[in-house]
Amino acid sequence: MTEQLEAAVIAAQDAVTKQGDTVRSLKASAKEGKVQKNDVDAAIVKLQELKLDLDAKQKELEKIAGGKSSQSREAFRAVLAGVLERRLFYIPSYKIYNGVAGFYDYGPPGCAIKANITQTWRQHFVLEENMLEVECPAVTPEIVLKASGHVDRFTDFMVKDVKTGECYRADHLLEGTLEKLLEDKKNPLTAEQTKEARDLLSTVGELKEDTLGAALTKYACKAPDTGNDISAPFAFNLMFKTSIGPRGDMVGYLRPETAQGIFVNFKDLLYYNGQRLPFAAAQIGNSYRNEISPRSGLLRVREFTQAEIEHFVNPDDKSHPKFSLVADLEPLLYSRDFQMGDEKKPHPIRLGDAVSKGIIANETLAYFIGRTWLFFKRIGINPQRMRFRQHLLHEMAHYANDCWDGEIETSYGWVECVGLADRSAYDLNAHAKMSKVDLKAHETYPEPRMEEELKIVVASKEVGQAFKKDAKTVTEHLQSMNECDAMELKAKLEAGSGDITTIDGQTFTVTPKMVDIKKELVRKTGRNFTPAVIEPSFGIGRIMYSMFEHAFYTRGEANDAGSDDARGVFRFTPLVAPVKATVFPLLQKAELNEVANKVSTSLTAAGLSNIVDTTGTTVGKRYARTDEIGVPFAITVDYQVQTDNTVTLRERDSMAQVRIPVPEIAGVVKSLVDGVSSWLEVQGKYPAQQAAANSEVA
Amino acid sequence: MTEQLEAAVIAAQDAVTKQGDTVRSLKASAKEGKVQKNDVDAAIVKLQELKLDLDAKQKELEKIAGGKSSQSREAFRAVLAGVLERRLFYIPSYKIYNGVAGFYDYGPPGCAIKANITQTWRQHFVLEENMLEVECPAVTPEIVLKASGHVDRFTDFMVKDVKTGECYRADHLLEGTLEKLLEDKKNPLTAEQTKEARDLLSTVGELKEDTLGAALTKYACKAPDTGNDISAPFAFNLMFKTSIGPRGDMVGYLRPETAQGIFVNFKDLLYYNGQRLPFAAAQIGNSYRNEISPRSGLLRVREFTQAEIEHFVNPDDKSHPKFSLVADLEPLLYSRDFQMGDEKKPHPIRLGDAVSKGIIANETLAYFIGRTWLFFKRIGINPQRMRFRQHLLHEMAHYANDCWDGEIETSYGWVECVGLADRSAYDLNAHAKMSKVDLKAHETYPEPRMEEELKIVVASKEVGQAFKKDAKTVTEHLQSMNECDAMELKAKLEAGSGDITTIDGQTFTVTPKMVDIKKELVRKTGRNFTPAVIEPSFGIGRIMYSMFEHAFYTRGEANDAGSDDARGVFRFTPLVAPVKATVFPLLQKAELNEVANKVSTSLTAAGLSNIVDTTGTTVGKRYARTDEIGVPFAITVDYQVQTDNTVTLRERDSMAQVRIPVPEIAGVVKSLVDGVSSWLEVQGKYPAQQAAANSEVA
Repeated sequence: MTEQLEAAVIAAQDAVTKQGDTVRSLKASAKEGKVQKNDVDAAIVKLQELKLDLDAKQKELEKIAGGKSSQSREAFRAVLAGVLERRLFYIPSYKIYNGVAGFYDYGPPGCAIKANITQTWRQHFVLEENMLEVECPAVTPEIVLKASGHVDRFTDFMVKDVKTGECYRADHLLEGTLEKLLEDKKNPLTAEQTKEARDLLSTVGELKEDTLGAALTKYACKAPDTGNDISAPFAFNLMFKTSIGPRGDMVGYLRPETAQGIFVNFKDLLYYNGQRLPFAAAQIGNSYRNEISPRSGLLRVREFTQAEIEHFVNPDDKSHPKFSLVADLEPLLYSRDFQMGDEKKPHPIRLGDAVSKGIIANETLAYFIGRTWLFFKRIGINPQRMRFRQHLLHEMAHYANDCWDGEIETSYGWVECVGLADRSAYDLNAHAKMSKVDLKAHETYPEPRMEEELKIVVASKEVGQAFKKDAKTVTEHLQSMNECDAMELKAKLEAGSGDITTIDGQTFTVTPKMVDIKKELVRKTGRNFTPAVIEPSFGIGRIMYSMFEHAFYTRGEANDAGSDDARGVFRFTPLVAPVKATVFPLLQKAELNEVANKVSTSLTAAGLSNIVDTTGTTVGKRYARTDEIGVPFAITVDYQVQTDNTVTLRERDSMAQVRIPVPEIAGVVKSLVDGVSSWLEVQGKYPAQQAAANSEVA
Repeated sequence: MTEQLEAAVIAAQDAVTKQGDTVRSLKASAKEGKVQKNDVDAAIVKLQELKLDLDAKQKELEKIAGGKSSQSREAFRAVLAGVLERRLFYIPSYKIYNGVAGFYDYGPPGCAIKANITQTWRQHFVLEENMLEVECPAVTPEIVLKASGHVDRFTDFMVKDVKTGECYRADHLLEGTLEKLLEDKKNPLTAEQTKEARDLLSTVGELKEDTLGAALTKYACKAPDTGNDISAPFAFNLMFKTSIGPRGDMVGYLRPETAQGIFVNFKDLLYYNGQRLPFAAAQIGNSYRNEISPRSGLLRVREFTQAEIEHFVNPDDKSHPKFSLVADLEPLLYSRDFQMGDEKKPHPIRLGDAVSKGIIANETLAYFIGRTWLFFKRIGINPQRMRFRQHLLHEMAHYANDCWDGEIETSYGWVECVGLADRSAYDLNAHAKMSKVDLKAHETYPEPRMEEELKIVVASKEVGQAFKKDAKTVTEHLQSMNECDAMELKAKLEAGSGDITTIDGQTFTVTPKMVDIKKELVRKTGRNFTPAVIEPSFGIGRIMYSMFEHAFYTRGEANDAGSDDARGVFRFTPLVAPVKATVFPLLQKAELNEVANKVSTSLTAAGLSNIVDTTGTTVGKRYARTDEIGVPFAITVDYQVQTDNTVTLRERDSMAQVRIPVPEIAGVVKSLVDGVSSWLEVQGKYPAQQAAANSEVA
C-alpha cells in the first residue's frame, strides 16, 4: 500500500514539474506575443490542480507512514532530482540524442561545487599533509592492468535475456528476486526458507560463478523487463577497451582507478622524496568502468572522478606522527563485531581507543579515517549520517590487512563513498614482478643489527662431475632457492634421504656433498624492503550527491497561486556553495543597477563569485531562485541606499536581514564565507532590516 | 658542420646528466656504507671531465654560430629537458614498462603548475566573463561525433613500411624528405626544382590523398628507420575507439575535443541563461587523439588537457560589449597579408584598428585575441615571443569566417597553442540536423518589422484531380520547398513552361493552377535563428611547455668542483610557481628548526604553499635546488633570529636578500605573491642582508 502511494506521489510530483515547465515556457512565449494570455491562465489553473492533488497524496502518505519517516525517501528524492536537473547541477549526457546510461554532464552550479569540493580535498589532504601530487593518463597499456590483476579479475557476473539479448547484473537480479520473496505477504516463506534467503542475500556480492548460477536457477530468476528466461551467469570485464597507436597491435584500457598511475611511479616518487619513508602520493582524475546496468544516478556511473592517496610505509611501523591530532575524534564506527552482533548498529568510538583496542589495525589507517571524517564535515555532510564500516573477513582481498568504508546515508541507503584499505605490499610486489624493476625502499637501522642470513654454497666440482652439461642449470637452481625451499632441502639431506629435484621436467638427485645450506648471523646496517601501502580512495561524485541530499530541504508552500518556483533550498556551506552571493537591485532602475554593479565589482575583487540578478520579478521570487542553487548570501539594493548608503544582507537559512554600508559589504561577506565571523556576530553588529519591501512575500 | 656539433653538444650534455645521476646515487649508497668513498671520488672526477668536454664543445659551437644564436636550440632544449625530467615536472608514462609514446605523467611541481595555470584560466575567462562552465564525459557515443564530422573526417594520412609494418605520418615524411633535399649542399637542386619543392613544402599539410601519394613517389620517400619502401598513403582516424555497455553493439570514442559536449547542451544552457544571447560556455577537460607518431614531448601527445570556450552570438551582431577594454592592446598580428607579403613578419597592431580595417573579422574574435594575449602575459609568456597568425584561406574549413592561431615561439619554432575561430553556425546546425532537435535562439526585435515571407498555397482540388493517390506527396513536396526552389518554380510557371517535378523517382507535371507562390510583407516581432559561435580553444600542455622554455635560464658555472646540481633557474611568476617559498634553517639545529616550522605554519595559514628544507647541505646548494623548481622566495633562519627575531628573504632572480622580522614574513611574501607589492618596495623597506654566511657560495 505504502509502495503504491509512494509511486503515486512520485508520479504527481513529476506531473507538477512538467506542468511547471509548460507554464514557464508559455509565459516566455506570451511575452513574445506568440501565445494568448488565457492559454497561460489555463495552464496555471491546471498547475494548481496538480499541486492540490500532489498535496493530498502526500498527506495521505504521511497518515499511513506516520511521523518522521513520512518524508518518503523516494518522494524526497524525486523533488530533489527535479531541482538538480532543472537548475543544471547535473543532467544526463547526450540528452538530445536520447542519452547514454551511466554518463552525466555537470552544468554551471555542479561544476562550481565540484571544483570547490576538489579544491577543498587538495587543501585538506595534499597541501596540509605535503603529499606528492601526480597526474597520469587514463589510457593505460594492457601490461599495467595485467600486473594489477584488473585484466583477469575486474569483472562482474552478467546474465542475458535469452530472447532479447538484454544484459543484467546477475547479483542485482538475484538480490531483487530474494527481496521480493521476503516481502511477499501473500505467499509467505517458511521460517527455514526465510533464513536461507536472508543468508544468501547477505553474501550475494561474493558468490562464485557456479553458486550464483545455482541460486539464479533455484529462485527461478527471470529477465525483469520481459519475464523471459535468462542465460547462465558469465564474467564480464568492466574495463573500456581500446587500441593504442596506428598498428592496432597494442591493447589499452581506460583506467578503472587512478591508483595504478601512482604505483608505477613509486621509484621516481621515492627518489623525489629523498629516499625517505613514509610519504604519500595523491591523484585526482577520472576513472572508467563499463557498468553492466548503471542506475542510481550519480552513484553508479561509467565515468567518474576519483581522488586517491597511496601512503607508503614501513610494514613494521605503521604509526603516524600526527595521529594525536585525530585521536580524540569519535566517528561512528561499524566494526566487524558490531556488524556480527545482535544490535547491528555503529557506535561512536574515540579513534585513540579504536587503535589501542585493536579495532582499527594501525595508527595510519585510523589517522585517515579521522581526516576523512573531518573532510566530510567540512564540506557539509551531516556527522550523524556518516559512518565507517569495517569489511567483514570474506569481503577483503587475501592480501589486505584491514579495510574500512566511509559510508554516507542517503535516500538510497548507506552509500560507500570512500574506501580506506591497508593493502600491504601487494601492488608494488605485483608491478615489481611484472616489470622486473626493483620497487623497494631502503631502511638504515639506527644501529647495526646481527641478522640471520641464508647461505647456499654449491660444491662446483661435485655438481660438475654428477651433471656434466646440466651442472650450470642445477647450480643456478640451488642458489636461487628461497628460504623455505632451502631449509626443506637441508632437512631432507640431513635425514640422509637425498633429494630428487625437478627442473623443467628433468630430474636430478642432489647429495649432501653437493650443497652446503646454513643460516649465518651477519652484521647488517640496514635492509631493503617493499613498503606497505595504506590507500584512502574517494569517489567525488558519490560524496557530492550525498552532500546534495544532506543539504536539501523544502520551505513553506508556494507563496502565490501562480508561482512556478519550487521552494527547495540547499544549505550548502559557504565553502562549497557554487556562488557566494547574489546582488538584486529592488527595481529595474539605472540608479539601483549602478550600485548593484559597484557591489558586484567589490565582491569580485575580494575573490567572491557572485551574480547580479536584474530581472524584474519580485524579490521574493529572486530569493527563492537563489536559495534553490544554495547561494548563502543575498544583497538587495533599495532606495534607502540614496539616504544612508546601506544595502540589505540576507542569510539564506534564517532568512534574517541586516543593513550594511556599501563600502563594508564585501568585507562582511568575505569574513562570513571564510568563517572568520558568524552570522550571529554580523546580526549583533549591524541593524536588522525592518521594512516589508524586501520581505520574502514581496 | 653546425648540425654535427649540435648533436655532439647534446650527447655531451646527456653524458653529464647521466654521470650526475651516477654520482648522486653513489653518494646515497656511500652514506649507507654500501660504497667506498674513493669510488665516489672517481665518479666525481669523471663528471668533471665530462663537464669540461661539454664546455669545450659548447664554446666551439658558439664560435661557429656566433652571437646570440649560439645558444643552440637543441642544446638549450636538452638542458631544459634534463631538469624537467629530473625534478619530475613531467616524465614519460609507464616508464617501468618502457613507456608508451605520446603519454606523460605530471609529477608534483608539474601538477602544481598545471593546477595554477588552469585556475588562472578559470579566473581570467570563466569568472571574469561570467561564462557557464560545464563538464562532460570523455566517452562519447558515435552519433555525436558522426554529427560533428569527426567519424568521417578526423584523419591523418599514414604510410606503412612495407616490410616491418611500422607506421609514419605521410605529411611528416614528405616534409622531412623535402627539407633534406633543399638543404643538401652536395647535390644542389636547380632553381626550378627548389621553387617546386618549396611550394610543395608550404602546402604539405593540406594535400589530398592522391596528390600526397604522387609527391611521395616523385620524391622517392622511404621509411626513415629502415630505408624500406613505403605503402601508398591512406587515411587513419585519430580517435580512440571503444565499446559502451555490455552488449557490444554501441560504438563509442574518446572525445577528440571538449567542444562537442557544449554544443549538445546548447538548448539547456540557453535556457539557463534566460534565453538571452550572447553567452559563452566553457569546459576544461581531457581530450584524446591517437597520433600516428607522437613526437616533440608535451607538444604532440595522445591525451591532453583542453580549455575551450564556445561564445554564442547573433550572426548579425558580433560586436562585444567589453571590446573597448582590449582595443588599445597591440599584440603581434601575423595577418594573411603579412604572410603573403615579402617581409613575412608579424607586426604589432592596435586591436581597435585591426577590427576597423577589417584585418580581424569582428569585435568578438578580436576581444578574445586580446584576452588571450593578456592571459599569456599573466602566466609568464614573453610578449615578444607570441603572435597571432591568421589562417590562410586554404587552411580554413569552408564554414569558418575567420581563424587565428595564438602561437608561441619555442625551440621547436612557432607552436600553435590556442585556436581562435569564428565557426559560424556550423556545429549547431550539424547537431540539429542529426538529433532533429531545434537548436535555435529567439530574438525579439526592438520594434516590429515588415519582412518578406514566402507563401506557397496549393490548390488541393486541382492537385487531387491530377495526381489522385499521389496528391498528398506532391502537396507536401510543394509546401516544403525552400525559397530558392520555390522562386525557380514560380519563374518557370510564369514563363508558361510548366514544370516536371521528380519526387522519389516519380515524375509529376505541375501547372500554374495548382500552386500559388508569392512573397508577402508580414509584420514580425522577432525571429528564430541558429547562433554563430566564436571558439577560443586552448591546449594547456602546449602553453605550459612553452612557458617552461620562456622561464628557463642557466646561471654561472657549477660552484664547487664536485657539485652535481645543475644551475638551471625557472623565473616562474609567483602566480604559477609550484611552491611560493622555501624555508631553510641555516644549520640542522633544533632551535633553528623550531623557528623554521613556525615560519612555515604562518605561510600555510596565509594560503602560501611552502616547503621546509632541513637537509644539512650548504645554503648555496639549497638555493640552487629551489631555483631549479622556480620557487620565487627563500627564507633562511640563521642565529641572528635569537638577537633580533629576523630572518632573511631572498628573491630568486636578483638573488638579493633582506632581513625581515619573523611576525611580518608571511605578510610580506603574501603581498609579493599577490602582486600587491614589488621586490623593489620590499628592498626599500627592509635592511639588506650583508653577512656572507647565507651567500650563494656558502
